[in-house]
Amino acid sequence: MYRNLLIVCLLGMLPAGSSLAAEPPTAPLSAETEECIGCHISVTPGIVKDWSASRHQRMTPGRALQRPEIERRISVQQVPDKLSRVAVGCYECHSQNPDRHADNFEHMGYRINVVVSPNDCATCHPVEVKQYSGTKKARAHGNLMDNPLYMTLAHSILGSKSVEDGVIVSADASENSLRETCLGCHGTRVEVRGMKTISTPFDDIQVPDLTNWPNQGVGRINPDGSLGACTSCHPRHEFSIEVARKPYTCAQCHLEPDVPAWNVYKESKHGNIYLSKWKEWDFTAVPWVMGEDFRAPTCAVCHNSLVTNPDGDVIARRTHDFGARLWVRLFSLVYSHPQPRDGDVTVIRNADGLPLPTTFTGQPATEYLIDGPVAEKRQAAMVAVCNGCHSTDWINGHFDKLDRTIEETDRMILTTTRLMTEVWERGIEDGTNPFDETIEKMWLKQWLFYGNSIKYASAMTGAPDYAAFKNGWWEMSRNLREMADMMDIKGKLKEEEAE
Amino acid sequence: MYRNLLIVCLLGMLPAGSSLAAEPPTAPLSAETEECIGCHISVTPGIVKDWSASRHQRMTPGRALQRPEIERRISVQQVPDKLSRVAVGCYECHSQNPDRHADNFEHMGYRINVVVSPNDCATCHPVEVKQYSGTKKARAHGNLMDNPLYMTLAHSILGSKSVEDGVIVSADASENSLRETCLGCHGTRVEVRGMKTISTPFDDIQVPDLTNWPNQGVGRINPDGSLGACTSCHPRHEFSIEVARKPYTCAQCHLEPDVPAWNVYKESKHGNIYLSKWKEWDFTAVPWVMGEDFRAPTCAVCHNSLVTNPDGDVIARRTHDFGARLWVRLFSLVYSHPQPRDGDVTVIRNADGLPLPTTFTGQPATEYLIDGPVAEKRQAAMVAVCNGCHSTDWINGHFDKLDRTIEETDRMILTTTRLMTEVWERGIEDGTNPFDETIEKMWLKQWLFYGNSIKYASAMTGAPDYAAFKNGWWEMSRNLREMADMMDIKGKLKEEEAE
Amino acid sequence: MYRNLLIVCLLGMLPAGSSLAAEPPTAPLSAETEECIGCHISVTPGIVKDWSASRHQRMTPGRALQRPEIERRISVQQVPDKLSRVAVGCYECHSQNPDRHADNFEHMGYRINVVVSPNDCATCHPVEVKQYSGTKKARAHGNLMDNPLYMTLAHSILGSKSVEDGVIVSADASENSLRETCLGCHGTRVEVRGMKTISTPFDDIQVPDLTNWPNQGVGRINPDGSLGACTSCHPRHEFSIEVARKPYTCAQCHLEPDVPAWNVYKESKHGNIYLSKWKEWDFTAVPWVMGEDFRAPTCAVCHNSLVTNPDGDVIARRTHDFGARLWVRLFSLVYSHPQPRDGDVTVIRNADGLPLPTTFTGQPATEYLIDGPVAEKRQAAMVAVCNGCHSTDWINGHFDKLDRTIEETDRMILTTTRLMTEVWERGIEDGTNPFDETIEKMWLKQWLFYGNSIKYASAMTGAPDYAAFKNGWWEMSRNLREMADMMDIKGKLKEEEAE
Repeated sequence: MYRNLLIVCLLGMLPAGSSLAAEPPTAPLSAETEECIGCHISVTPGIVKDWSASRHQRMTPGRALQRPEIERRISVQQVPDKLSRVAVGCYECHSQNPDRHADNFEHMGYRINVVVSPNDCATCHPVEVKQYSGTKKARAHGNLMDNPLYMTLAHSILGSKSVEDGVIVSADASENSLRETCLGCHGTRVEVRGMKTISTPFDDIQVPDLTNWPNQGVGRINPDGSLGACTSCHPRHEFSIEVARKPYTCAQCHLEPDVPAWNVYKESKHGNIYLSKWKEWDFTAVPWVMGEDFRAPTCAVCHNSLVTNPDGDVIARRTHDFGARLWVRLFSLVYSHPQPRDGDVTVIRNADGLPLPTTFTGQPATEYLIDGPVAEKRQAAMVAVCNGCHSTDWINGHFDKLDRTIEETDRMILTTTRLMTEVWERGIEDGTNPFDETIEKMWLKQWLFYGNSIKYASAMTGAPDYAAFKNGWWEMSRNLREMADMMDIKGKLKEEEAE
Repeated sequence: MYRNLLIVCLLGMLPAGSSLAAEPPTAPLSAETEECIGCHISVTPGIVKDWSASRHQRMTPGRALQRPEIERRISVQQVPDKLSRVAVGCYECHSQNPDRHADNFEHMGYRINVVVSPNDCATCHPVEVKQYSGTKKARAHGNLMDNPLYMTLAHSILGSKSVEDGVIVSADASENSLRETCLGCHGTRVEVRGMKTISTPFDDIQVPDLTNWPNQGVGRINPDGSLGACTSCHPRHEFSIEVARKPYTCAQCHLEPDVPAWNVYKESKHGNIYLSKWKEWDFTAVPWVMGEDFRAPTCAVCHNSLVTNPDGDVIARRTHDFGARLWVRLFSLVYSHPQPRDGDVTVIRNADGLPLPTTFTGQPATEYLIDGPVAEKRQAAMVAVCNGCHSTDWINGHFDKLDRTIEETDRMILTTTRLMTEVWERGIEDGTNPFDETIEKMWLKQWLFYGNSIKYASAMTGAPDYAAFKNGWWEMSRNLREMADMMDIKGKLKEEEAE
Repeated sequence: MYRNLLIVCLLGMLPAGSSLAAEPPTAPLSAETEECIGCHISVTPGIVKDWSASRHQRMTPGRALQRPEIERRISVQQVPDKLSRVAVGCYECHSQNPDRHADNFEHMGYRINVVVSPNDCATCHPVEVKQYSGTKKARAHGNLMDNPLYMTLAHSILGSKSVEDGVIVSADASENSLRETCLGCHGTRVEVRGMKTISTPFDDIQVPDLTNWPNQGVGRINPDGSLGACTSCHPRHEFSIEVARKPYTCAQCHLEPDVPAWNVYKESKHGNIYLSKWKEWDFTAVPWVMGEDFRAPTCAVCHNSLVTNPDGDVIARRTHDFGARLWVRLFSLVYSHPQPRDGDVTVIRNADGLPLPTTFTGQPATEYLIDGPVAEKRQAAMVAVCNGCHSTDWINGHFDKLDRTIEETDRMILTTTRLMTEVWERGIEDGTNPFDETIEKMWLKQWLFYGNSIKYASAMTGAPDYAAFKNGWWEMSRNLREMADMMDIKGKLKEEEAE
C-alpha cells in the first residue's frame, strides 16, 4: 500500500496538467544526430539544450502516430521508415530535401541545409503547412513588396532623406532598412549568393553566403523556394506549442500603433484573467480543453487552436490558416472590408484601379473579397469558441456592438479622407505621393493607427480606455481638428505667396 | 511513521501558501444548481469549469461562518438556512430577489435573473456592498453622464464629425460609442426593453431584451436598480480574490494616458519586485500577511485589502470604499484637490458655477471636499501600510516629495491655463466649448495626461523616466511651447484675415 | 527502501532548479541583529520578512567561502572573524565603517548608519564594488549635473514656467523636480543636514536629517562619500540575484522613449521566449548555466552575469562594469560613437568645445572614446554569449545589420541637424539654448527618442514594428517633414512681421 501511495506521490510531483506521464522521457538518436550533438554541445550548447527540452527530443514520429488522432501533434499518416524510430534531431530536420535547397552545403561530411523550411517541416506536419501556404501570412513578403502603393509608403518612411533648399528629398528604402522593419515581420528573401569562408571559434569553415539572413518573418522566401518560417511562432530549437499559444508570440508583430492586438488584449478582461491565472493552466495539452487547460482565451484559442470541451467534443478545429475564423478585416485599408478571398492580395484592384481593397470613399473591391456565405461560416467558427463561455445573447450583443463600431469608425475615416481630398484639390499638398507630406501623414494615422485601435478594442471586448484616450477616439478627433487647422495655415500661407 | 511522512508529503504537494489544506475540496450542490449544471456543462462548459475552480464551489456559506472572523471572506452574520448548507452555485446567485429584477425571466422552469447585481451579492457580502455603494466608483455612470461639462468633452471626442466649408461639425456621441469607451469603465445603464427570441445552438429561447449589454463597468446601473458590477474586479465565474488582488485588474481602467496608475506601477520599485517575485506569493490568503504572503504591494495592498503583520495584528482593515485611504485627489480636474466628500460628485460646483472641483485658476470647491481631519485620518490609514516596510523618516520624505510635486505640477497647469485664457480672450479659439479646438485640446493634455502622470509617478515612489520623458515634464514643457507657437501662428493669420 | 524514496520525494518538492538542497535553511544571528529584529519584527515586519527570505539570512560569509570559487556570490578572500560565523543581518550591514558615515547615529544603544553604501557592501563583495566604481552608472549623478549642456536641457524641461507677453520664461529646475525625474535614476546627493526629531508609531526619536532621501539611483552620492546604490538592482532587504537578473529591474530606468531597451526586448524573439518560459528557469543558480538554467537571454545574461556552458566552461565572466561587453554607444548624443574611455564623462569635449561625445555634424571626440582594440575585445566578450546559441554566420549577419542601421540612422539625424542649423541661421529659433523652442524640441526627438529606438531594436534582434511604426522610422520621417513645415510657417510669419 505504501508503495502505491509513493507512486501516486511521485507522479504527483510532475508539473500540473502534464500529459506526458506515460511517455518515455527520451527517444533514441540517429547516428547522424548523435554526431551533430557531439560537437554542437560545445559549439552552441544553448541550441542543443533548448532542443533537449523539446518534444522533438522525447518523441519519435513512429510513437507519435500511435496516439489517438485527436491527441496528435503530427498530421502525416505515415512517416518514412528511417525517421520513424528516432528522435526528431538535428540531422532529421537539416537534411530534408537537399536537392531543393540552394543553401545545402557540405559540413563535416554531411550535406546540411542552413535554413529548415516549411516544406521540410511538412515531412511530418503536412496539413499545417498546406493550410498556412494559402494565407496572407505566407504571402506577406510579396503582399508588401509587390504592391506599388505600399512601397510608396515604405520608401517615404524608410528612405534616406536630404534637405535641399528646404525641400525634403527621399531616396528609396535600403534593403537593410526594409529588413530591419517591414520585413522583420513580413519576411525577407533569403537567397544564396555563393559560398564564403567564415572564422568560427573552432575553425575556418565554408558556408553558403545568404542574403537577408538571419530573418524569421512569417512570409520569408526560403532558399528552397518555399514561403514562411515556422520559427516565427515556434522558436528554435524547442519548437514549443506553449510558446505559440502564449500571446507574446503574436505580440512580436501585432502591436501598437498599427496592429494593436496585444495592446488591446492585455487591457481586456480576457487579458486580465490570462495574466492573473496562467500559472495554473496547461499550454501544452492536445487537444486543448476549455475550462480545464485554460479558463480565458489567448490569441491561439480564438484564432487557430484545436479546442474541445471537457467531454472531448470539438469546439474548434486546429487551423494554421489564420483567417479561417475571420470574416471582416478590421485592419483599415483605408476602411474595414470583408476578408480577401486569397492569401495573395497583390491581385486586388479597387474601383479606382489602386491596389487597395477599398476606394478612398469606402467602396470595397468586392470581387476580390469573400462573400456573405463564406463570411457567415467563418463567423460561426469563431462564435462557437465564444459560446464555450458566453450565452448567445451575450455574443449577439458583442458582435452587434462591433458592427456599429466599425461603421462609426469608418464614417470618421471618410470625413477625414474628404478633408484630405480638399487639401489635394486646393494644391496645399501634392497627392502624387499620398504619404509623404504633413497632412497626408496625419490622414494615415486616422485609419492605420486610430481606426485600427478602436476596432480592435471593440472586437476583443475590452480596452475601453485604449479606444477612448490612448490611441482611439480622442486622437482621432484631435488629429482631425489639427488637420483642419494645418490645412487652413498652409492654405493661407500658400495664397499669400501666390499674391 | 511512514504513513505520517506520506501524509506530510502529500500535503506538501498542495500549491505553496495554500490555506485550503483543511477544507473539504467540494461542497454539496442544491438540486436547482445541479440541474443548471446538467445542461450548462455542455452549453457553456467554460463558465461551469471556471466556477468549479472557485471558492464558491468548495465552500458553503454555513462553513464559511465557522471560520474565525478575521479569516472570513463573507461579511454577513447569518445566512438564510436554504443557502447555508450548499455551494454558492448557479441558482443560488441567479435567483436572488427576483421581484426586484426587471431582468428576471422564466428559464427551463425556473425564474432566473440575467444580471447578478451587487444587491444580490449582498446576501452574503453586505459590508462590502455597503462600502462600495458610497464610492465614486458606484456612481461612475452618473458622475460622467450627469455632468454637462464632461459630456461636452465626451461629445467632442466621440461625436460623428463632418467637415462643411472647412468647419468641423460634431454630432453628439452615440450610445454605442459611449458604451465602447467611457462607459466600458464607468458602466452602462442596463434596462429591459421587453422580451425577445434568440436562436442558441440548442434551441430558440425567450430572454429579456437588455440595453447596453454586455457591460462590466464599475458604476453599471442594473435592472434591479442597484449600482455597480462586482465582476469588474472579480471576473465571472471564479470570482477570484487572487485576480482582484493582482494589478492587471485595476489596469483594465487605470491606464495611460489619463490615469496611468498601472503604467507607473510597473516601472516602479514595487512593480519590479512584484513582477519578479509574485510566483512565490499567496494571493488568496485571508487575512493577507505582509512579509509572508507578499513582499511588495500591489494596488490592493495599499488601497483596500485586509492586511496584517505576521503576528496577526491588523495593519489595514479591508475596505471596498476605494477612497478610504486617499486624501488628495491626484487626478487633475483641472488641479489636484482634497477628495470629494461624497461618491456622487455631480453636486459639486466651483466658484465659477462650473461642475468642477476646482476653478480654472485652481481654487478648490471646498464645501464639497473633505476637510483636514478627514484627510489626516485617511492618510494615517495609508501610512500604516507604508510603515510595514518603511521607516517613518522614509515615509515622511516620500510624502513631502509628493506634496511638492503636486504643487509644482499645478503651478505649471496654471501657467498653461493662463495662456489658454489669453487664447480665448483674443478670440483665437472659442471657449464656449472649451474642448473642441486645437489649442484647447493641447491644454487638456497638460492636466489630464501629463499632470496626472507626474503626480502618479511621484505618489507611487517610482517611474522617474515616466515623469521625465515618457508622459510628464518633457511633454508638459514641449506642449506649452507648442501652444504658445500655435497661439502666435493662429493669432497672426486671424489678424491678417481681419485686415 | 521506502525511507529512501521518501527522502527523494521530499527533496523533490523543493522548487525546481533549487541549488540549496544541501545548505542549512538558516544561519545563526549575531546578538546585535537579534536585538534589531526583536523590535523591528513589529515595527517594520515587511523588511524583516523580506530579509528572512534572503540568502543573507541563510548563509554566513564563512560558509560562503567554503564553496568552490565559481559558485561563490562573495568575492572577498577572507571575512573578518566577527562576521564570518553569523548571518548577514541588520547590524552586520548597518554598522560598517561608522566613522566614514556622516549618517551614523545613536539608535537604541547602537551606532547605526541609515544608508548602507557600496563601500559597506565591499566588506564581502569588493570585486563587484570596484568594477562598478569605474562605470558611467557610478558617475551618473555628476555626469548629468556637472554637464552644463545637459543641465540646460533639464532646466528647459523641468523649470517652473510663466508666460509674460506671450513669451515663455523658465526658472531653473527645483531640487525636488530633479529628484523626481532625472535623479530618480541617476541618483541624488544624500547629505546630512544635522539631527531631527521624528514621531514614529512607537516613540519620538532622533535621526539624521538627510537631503534628497529616500532615493535609490545608480549614481547616488552617499553620506560616506561613496557612489551608487546596490539597491538600485538588488532591492532591499532580500538583495535578490533573481530580481537583478530579471528584466524588470533594468526596466526601471531603461525605458521608452529615450532608452527603450525594455520596450524593444519584450517585443523581440528573446523577450517572447523569456515571457513564455521563465517559470521553468532558475534565476538564482551561480554559475548561471546556459541551456539549463535559462534558454533565452535576459539583460543580465548578455551584459553582466557569469555564464557557463553545461560542462562548466566559462562563456562570460561576471562583471559589474556594465560597459564591459559594450563597444559602440547606441545612445545618440547626438550620434552613436565608441563608448567613452572613462565612467566620468564630464571631461569630454567635442571639436566645437561642447561637452558632447560628437559634434553636431557627427565627428566623434576620439581622444575621450575607446579605440579599436578595446572595442574589439569588448565585442568579442558579447559575441561569446551570442555564440552559445547562434552560429558565427548568424552573428556576423546580425552585427553587420546593426552597423548599417547605425549608419543609416545617424545619416537621418545629420539631415535633421542640418535643417535645425538652417532654422538657427535664419533666426527662426534662437540656438543659444538649443532645447527650449518648438523646432529644437522636434530635433531632439529625432536623436534622443526615434534614433535610439531604431538602434536598440536592431541591436536586440527584434522589435521590427517598434523600429517601423511605433517609435522609429515612421516618427523620424514624419517629424522631419513637420520640422520643415514648421520652419516654413514660422519663417514666413517672421518675414511678414519684419516687413
